[in-house]
Amino acid sequence: MAEDKKKQVILVTNDDGITAPGIQNLVEAVKGLGKIIVVAPDKPQSGMGHAITIGVPLRLNKVAFLGDADIEAYQCTGTPVDCVKLAVDKVLHRKPDICISGINHGANHSINVIYSGTMSAAVEAAIESIPSVGFSLLDYSLDADFTASRKYARIIVEEMLKNPPDKHTVLNVNIPIAKEEEIKGVKICRQAYAKYEEDFLERLDPHGRKYYWLTGEFVNFDEGKDTDVWALANNYISVVPVQFDLTHYTLKDKLEKTWSFVHKER
Amino acid sequence: MAEDKKKQVILVTNDDGITAPGIQNLVEAVKGLGKIIVVAPDKPQSGMGHAITIGVPLRLNKVAFLGDADIEAYQCTGTPVDCVKLAVDKVLHRKPDICISGINHGANHSINVIYSGTMSAAVEAAIESIPSVGFSLLDYSLDADFTASRKYARIIVEEMLKNPPDKHTVLNVNIPIAKEEEIKGVKICRQAYAKYEEDFLERLDPHGRKYYWLTGEFVNFDEGKDTDVWALANNYISVVPVQFDLTHYTLKDKLEKTWSFVHKER
Repeated sequence: MAEDKKKQVILVTNDDGITAPGIQNLVEAVKGLGKIIVVAPDKPQSGMGHAITIGVPLRLNKVAFLGDADIEAYQCTGTPVDCVKLAVDKVLHRKPDICISGINHGANHSINVIYSGTMSAAVEAAIESIPSVGFSLLDYSLDADFTASRKYARIIVEEMLKNPPDKHTVLNVNIPIAKEEEIKGVKICRQAYAKYEEDFLERLDPHGRKYYWLTGEFVNFDEGKDTDVWALANNYISVVPVQFDLTHYTLKDKLEKTWSFVHKER
Repeated sequence: MAEDKKKQVILVTNDDGITAPGIQNLVEAVKGLGKIIVVAPDKPQSGMGHAITIGVPLRLNKVAFLGDADIEAYQCTGTPVDCVKLAVDKVLHRKPDICISGINHGANHSINVIYSGTMSAAVEAAIESIPSVGFSLLDYSLDADFTASRKYARIIVEEMLKNPPDKHTVLNVNIPIAKEEEIKGVKICRQAYAKYEEDFLERLDPHGRKYYWLTGEFVNFDEGKDTDVWALANNYISVVPVQFDLTHYTLKDKLEKTWSFVHKER
């Protein structure tokens, strides 16, 4: 117990749900670096962005995880952001030293950071003054190879526990589909400007009424070699530091000068 | 029809649902400024953040709106972000000249921008190269007085249609609870640093099992007079320009210099 008290606390969550191989690999990656607490959704929550659950109450149930008695794990009926909030308030009763989210099955580079439940959990932690990292592998398949992801996740988490960064730090880490030996290293990047070109699939139900499936193609408009999209295409692990102050300061100055009807400071 | 083709197109959405007084007031506010198309959720979607609907298909149904035959309106089974995507792809088949979202029943200042469906709809539009504004009134009540909100919403939308800003522009506009004559004007602001101090309410169900309701208190840590929180407390309308490039550039430079294991540009 005395030893346990000195241990740093690592909160682990994700958006693919607690049974996803990605979160199991993330826990394996950081084993031994601290006391591990898992609080993750009980079902997939991809694309939930920063959603929170207001209209219905939440359940939290203790579960076994990887057959390892040292790992305390809970599944939650809410979104990834709910998981972080509940973990801090009702499970840990304190702030963990780090919150890690993932490993997501699929890319969260570029504009995906905005739609991603994985990243929203990390952003929520940082708002609550907990340094955090979201990890995503560019491979949707259930039998994806997480070997390289595990290696680099451990390097990054170890660094952050040894040299704690600013408490509002959020990192968006993406791992390319590549063998460990093909990966060229870790590159600090900016978020590429890309978007989804939507193309809703229109179908008719048995009663002849239309319904729509959201589909879309990821289109990159940003050729910068300092972007996450470039880094991943060139077999680097991309790390984008993320902020939750969304103020567009350049535009703020411009509007103050150009809009005639706004209050001017003396 | 010839006249109609010259008209600018205004897409209106919200997160409180198509029957909310807020969206009706927003439509009233901009009447006459262009062709109005409403595509809004069929039920409240507060706190949905930037959620999109992946697992189930979406429905879109044409409805009457304010008894005004000139207004084309649709209710959608999805989130605010889904509404914007569907509106562009399946209703308008083109980009509108502006997308406006709200008027939200309740504040979206400071950190609320991240949780807000109202603001996520606006951000989605800007990602798709449509200038956009989210409007929120700091009054949750269904019989809130939207008089001042309507006046300032019209001033801002008129300005943006006359002098189109950058296509990725997003503005987060909040209106204080105050009589029109008490409002001191419009102030361009930055997002205050505030957060919710969570306090989950724990209850027992009839079977003796715990469940939790998310509750929390908004706590402001930022006394800056250039913030939206200050402006609203002092009876200004706050306008925060919002960006969707979440890269934290200062931290990016720092990590490039301090992390030993990252790729350095020659």
